Amino acid sequence: MIEVKSFAGLRRFAPDKLQKLNLFETDGFFCDVYCLEPGQEQKAHAHAGSDKLYAVLEGTVTVSVGGETRELRAGEIVLCPAGSQHGLVNRSGARAALLVFMAPRP
Amino acid sequence: MIEVKSFAGLRRFAPDKLQKLNLFETDGFFCDVYCLEPGQEQKAHAHAGSDKLYAVLEGTVTVSVGGETRELRAGEIVLCPAGSQHGLVNRSGARAALLVFMAPRP
Repeated sequence: MIEVKSFAGLRRFAPDKLQKLNLFETDGFFCDVYCLEPGQEQKAHAHAGSDKLYAVLEGTVTVSVGGETRELRAGEIVLCPAGSQHGLVNRSGARAALLVFMAPRP
Repeated sequence: MIEVKSFAGLRRFAPDKLQKLNLFETDGFFCDVYCLEPGQEQKAHAHAGSDKLYAVLEGTVTVSVGGETRELRAGEIVLCPAGSQHGLVNRSGARAALLVFMAPRP
């Protein structure tokens, strides 16, 4: 059964923390939408054997990978290689949303 | 070294066939942008052990997965499970672009 979802329309924001909304999960990967209010973050962490992509769908986020920090705008994507410390924070005044892909699934 | 790329800005169209532009490739997955002129297609095929996602960034494409066909617009995403026959065609009159993830890398 073919299952079409909307990554543009899937949003849920909450005042306490960033929201992770799953789109697809298989034996091999997951694909989520992350929704961040201003000030919300995903603290730096690492996955020993899994690579992750952060693709910014709307807003602006500050991403750290392996000790380096960059500001990403909508339309930009970054690789967080397996083993690297990575995290993100919404330092802007507006909501942000990202498409997040990780494989293999941890 | 953090490497930021633009999935919104990466486009290359060619008259002879769809263009596959790589964004990231790791031991575990690849992430490409596919660019299709009207009439161009990726013929149906299957990957025994790898799942794929088609996420439409612009335009409209007709996607087939496991014998079912759906029209996807910008902002929509579909899973092509491992082993399923899948393909796509741009039957619209405008260019189309997709973000494509596959894991494990075949």
